[in-house]
Amino acid sequence: MALYADAQRIMRAALDAALPDAAVARALERARFGGGRIVLVAIGKAAWQMASTACALLGERISHGVVITKYGHAMGELQHMRLFEAGHPVPDANSLRAADAAIDAVRGLRAEDTVLFLVSGGGSALFEKPLISLEELEDVTQQLLACGANIVELNTVRKRLSAVKGGRFAQLCEPARVFSIVLSDILGDPLDMIASGPAFPDQSTGEQALAIVGKYGLCISEMVRALLTRETPKRLDNVVTEITGSVSQLCNAAREECLRLGYAPHVLTDRLCCTARDAGSFLASIARFHSGAAHSVAYIAGGETVVELKGNGKGGRNQEIALGAVEGIAGLENVAVFSIGSDGTDGPTDAAGGYVDGTTAHRMAERGVDVQAHLRNNDAYAALDAVGGLIKTGPTGTNVNDLSVVLIRR
Amino acid sequence: MALYADAQRIMRAALDAALPDAAVARALERARFGGGRIVLVAIGKAAWQMASTACALLGERISHGVVITKYGHAMGELQHMRLFEAGHPVPDANSLRAADAAIDAVRGLRAEDTVLFLVSGGGSALFEKPLISLEELEDVTQQLLACGANIVELNTVRKRLSAVKGGRFAQLCEPARVFSIVLSDILGDPLDMIASGPAFPDQSTGEQALAIVGKYGLCISEMVRALLTRETPKRLDNVVTEITGSVSQLCNAAREECLRLGYAPHVLTDRLCCTARDAGSFLASIARFHSGAAHSVAYIAGGETVVELKGNGKGGRNQEIALGAVEGIAGLENVAVFSIGSDGTDGPTDAAGGYVDGTTAHRMAERGVDVQAHLRNNDAYAALDAVGGLIKTGPTGTNVNDLSVVLIRR
Repeated sequence: MALYADAQRIMRAALDAALPDAAVARALERARFGGGRIVLVAIGKAAWQMASTACALLGERISHGVVITKYGHAMGELQHMRLFEAGHPVPDANSLRAADAAIDAVRGLRAEDTVLFLVSGGGSALFEKPLISLEELEDVTQQLLACGANIVELNTVRKRLSAVKGGRFAQLCEPARVFSIVLSDILGDPLDMIASGPAFPDQSTGEQALAIVGKYGLCISEMVRALLTRETPKRLDNVVTEITGSVSQLCNAAREECLRLGYAPHVLTDRLCCTARDAGSFLASIARFHSGAAHSVAYIAGGETVVELKGNGKGGRNQEIALGAVEGIAGLENVAVFSIGSDGTDGPTDAAGGYVDGTTAHRMAERGVDVQAHLRNNDAYAALDAVGGLIKTGPTGTNVNDLSVVLIRR
Repeated sequence: MALYADAQRIMRAALDAALPDAAVARALERARFGGGRIVLVAIGKAAWQMASTACALLGERISHGVVITKYGHAMGELQHMRLFEAGHPVPDANSLRAADAAIDAVRGLRAEDTVLFLVSGGGSALFEKPLISLEELEDVTQQLLACGANIVELNTVRKRLSAVKGGRFAQLCEPARVFSIVLSDILGDPLDMIASGPAFPDQSTGEQALAIVGKYGLCISEMVRALLTRETPKRLDNVVTEITGSVSQLCNAAREECLRLGYAPHVLTDRLCCTARDAGSFLASIARFHSGAAHSVAYIAGGETVVELKGNGKGGRNQEIALGAVEGIAGLENVAVFSIGSDGTDGPTDAAGGYVDGTTAHRMAERGVDVQAHLRNNDAYAALDAVGGLIKTGPTGTNVNDLSVVLIRR
């Protein structure tokens, strides 16, 4: 029970640190605003929460702003803000109207002014001003997807067809400074990828864009061809970027709580991306090797694993990690492994993840739960449910990948 | 190149430590022989090398002995030794003749005498004296295998049908002491499993053996039923056991060499057992997270991963681990990952494993090697071969599982 209580505290601390509210508040501590006006532009699925926190903390310092989020994600009026809800994952007319409003909001600013730019996942679709018609943009995108272009190729082309992507929105803010707070939902925090990097320099080139057209034999208009050669900004001197609420912070917060609880914590990685059940097995093998350690130890891994769908059971990445660890830690009384999705929704289930310990294998056997059969059928939910091993948090309001922890208690 | 040279030294040091010669020599340093005679009994695939080292070190102190190994594995006469070659993995008439000779050799010893018992993998088949006919033993074994009995169930039954398994050989040595040196080839060093534990107490019970017969509805003779209820020794006061040359020593030797080379080494586990390519991905994600570390760091994992056979290419566990790490460490100039099988033979290939670093992904792309396609086709050999990434050691003379290492150089 001590292990379970520790696990609960670690999860809580990690999730709290990753909430948009906490993440934005932390990043704002490091912000230096000049004497001029502050204009707020928030885009993405967490735009409303992020903006709400900034409004609460900065109050009347913010002169005006625009908040652009997904349909159903705006939770009420915010002072001095225009709210937009738009299409995701495919941009729609409201995405364009919203982008126009944001561009209006940053027009005519002076060098002493600051655009507080709050970015979260989904911003790429929600905030768009194509330099061609939406239909033609859709056509080019479809051609790229159909011929198997990868995400880097897709972005190299699409950034050039947009007035706001690939650093161009930051250019529109000039001469004002841009303080950009990015809630990262992509492993490794690739700032040019998150929301297509409206305020981040783009390293891809027009030459590369044309090479992609040639490679796949894309059918494009002269207009598109001309736009592809037009360069995106390679440096942006007016932008300061703070990454916040990423999976690294999830890991760090877990690490700090482990320290407080008396564990020597070791963060293994913040970009786990292997198969979920094998991640569970790997973590269990670490647990077993170190289970005789003289002191309490914790191993922490953040990332986004993959589920190999073979069966028709119910589960998610984190539940498979937990179930994948069961046999490897069987009988170890001082060991627990748990894994949670930071959004509180693991796969198509009402659970956020799973918790298992050295007694789980025995308790599953008593209830007739065959661990291997449940893994084969991607049915981790039922197996964990049978022994009270599901973790349920409800939706957390953030989405910065997953957290897996091994606890070895002395 | 510095990374590659480091990798070579670490592999060499680890393999040297795991060779039967070094392993036996190390264990003999801890041996205390009384004033009586020393009788040597060596069984298993490494029996000849182990006995050869003991003979060289103890010379005339050994009065006589028996060495039992696989066909083709005896490399020449050894002083005062009777050599036997026998059947593996299925025991044959020579296994029985050899066991009789070993029993003869330890007959009539006194309390001041010592049996130096050298055990390695394969001993279960090579050294056998069934209490029933070899045919009946074969029949019971086949019935168990056919109904899907697991290895624990198999051993619980078979130990009771043998005059030497499950601690019974040590009883035959009484009143002499037994100093047992075990070269472990099974993860976790389960002494009751290695060679079926001729000198290790057996914790299974006759009741369990009968329950297995009932569970699978085995068809057995009255003789077998009677034997199953006869207890194996639950404690053996005349035996001292030294485990040597196990995967833990492989990891420890790698750890020590890493230290000498200036790396801060961290042994993650000595019983890795997940899918090989996912182990590679996991190790790569650790490497990427720590690639910015201020000091040189090494992560070490020992164990025996699994290859999911889906394609018809050529490769092995260790080659898949290396190839599975390629994309995760791409571009990291100060990172290498390598993995080797300690026997020098990884899968059905002439390579012991693979070495990859931050440049491998680029060099594979230049040569048109599609990493994912090679992984899907279980064709790691060709992919690594294209960039000089195969490790070839030739047969090493030992077999204590695999070693995987991440190097991060500063």
